[in-house]
Amino acid sequence: MQQNASKNVLVVSAHPEPRSLNAALTDFAVDHLRAAGRQVRVSDLYAMKWKAGVDADDFPDHPADERLDVLAGQERATLAGRLTADVAAEQEKLLWSDALVLQFPMWWFSVPAILKGWIDRVFTNGFAYGPSVPPPYSEGALGGRRALLSTTVGARETAFSDRGIHGDLESVLHPLQHGLLWFAGIQPLEPFAVYGTVDLPEERFAAAKEAYARRLDALFTAAPVPYRSLTGGDYDHAMRLLPGREAPGTRGLDLHRR
Amino acid sequence: MQQNASKNVLVVSAHPEPRSLNAALTDFAVDHLRAAGRQVRVSDLYAMKWKAGVDADDFPDHPADERLDVLAGQERATLAGRLTADVAAEQEKLLWSDALVLQFPMWWFSVPAILKGWIDRVFTNGFAYGPSVPPPYSEGALGGRRALLSTTVGARETAFSDRGIHGDLESVLHPLQHGLLWFAGIQPLEPFAVYGTVDLPEERFAAAKEAYARRLDALFTAAPVPYRSLTGGDYDHAMRLLPGREAPGTRGLDLHRR
Repeated sequence: MQQNASKNVLVVSAHPEPRSLNAALTDFAVDHLRAAGRQVRVSDLYAMKWKAGVDADDFPDHPADERLDVLAGQERATLAGRLTADVAAEQEKLLWSDALVLQFPMWWFSVPAILKGWIDRVFTNGFAYGPSVPPPYSEGALGGRRALLSTTVGARETAFSDRGIHGDLESVLHPLQHGLLWFAGIQPLEPFAVYGTVDLPEERFAAAKEAYARRLDALFTAAPVPYRSLTGGDYDHAMRLLPGREAPGTRGLDLHRR
Repeated sequence: MQQNASKNVLVVSAHPEPRSLNAALTDFAVDHLRAAGRQVRVSDLYAMKWKAGVDADDFPDHPADERLDVLAGQERATLAGRLTADVAAEQEKLLWSDALVLQFPMWWFSVPAILKGWIDRVFTNGFAYGPSVPPPYSEGALGGRRALLSTTVGARETAFSDRGIHGDLESVLHPLQHGLLWFAGIQPLEPFAVYGTVDLPEERFAAAKEAYARRLDALFTAAPVPYRSLTGGDYDHAMRLLPGREAPGTRGLDLHRR
């Protein structure tokens, strides 16, 4: 029973320097989760020399002289169990996991290229979405899982606040929170960010670890972002939010939160 | 005079298949721009085998046993003229250009990893932003240039409309339009998207090319997205929009458009 009650967490980390803040936060998360009785596996993408680019080499059965249709090629290889070993291993880790933690430096308002390449190559048609799995935005393909984005940001927090010039953090991360995770059926929590990391003195690093610990402790209990389900009756057949579903005055990306 | 009046366009393309829709749209754009008298250079990232991941190899002067601080390393190498040859060549093309066209398939609501890697490695601290260049969001570092994102999207257009479940296209592309381009001082135009590309019959392909041609013809005349300038008096010292600057009822990312 004790074992069944335990939860599995996959931590994906994306920084080239093993002595970086991101590496330290990854180590901290792994230790903290294990101390709390979680099973933890880590994908350290730089250490793994993760291949970032989707190309024909991803599809061993693809005839070299045939035009590569990426979506169709992914689906065929996924359903036939003929993905490359590196991609198959990451999919197995995702299926094993109850929660996913992505630890990364925010580069150009998104993930580093190597992590985008993990997303592009692992979240295949046929695995994370597509006609052969349940519908998107519905706890379908990878439902029953949660995710926490944990990012380090050079800028100060005010610049990512509601009126901050970079855009509010939730909107900036929408392509990942809603577009990647929730699309695949994974429930994202509010992201965790450490700001002002260009120069992070020891006391702010200690405070960041403490705040991160509280977020990790709540990985399976905190309320996820209340995104709407595609199949819950809020959207029409053209995938538009039906009139009158939102609170008056709601605009833009906030429309898609209940 | 004729020669001075001519404009330079850098087209960056990111698809692994030379017979893909994206490759066809790239070829079309290049031919169309040249026929209109533009000087055009192309960075075909897959053909160039572009290295996607930022790592210590990007900084030839970095001592192997020293901790790599990516931001500081980029700035030092940029200011010293000691970036790798591949990155320096792309920066030279950007400086040569009057406009930038990014042609890519939308993968996971963003650019493919190889294009993210072009962004991460080419838009260095010291070149596209940072203390040694003019302030961001101000036609500073790369000011005087325009950009057009041209993307192919598997989903239908309604799903990216104002009430579409994926989020409206402008919000989904905010990290690129505002976060990358405008941050570096480049004025983005409204993005160009071809939707429903999973199956694109010949007549829709022809219509897409015609629509693309009109956008390319207006590359130097269309009004750019009216993003606010950081230095124009709309933001406080903490980079938050000052109260009362927006039209009543404006919310979220729209706050940052004039």
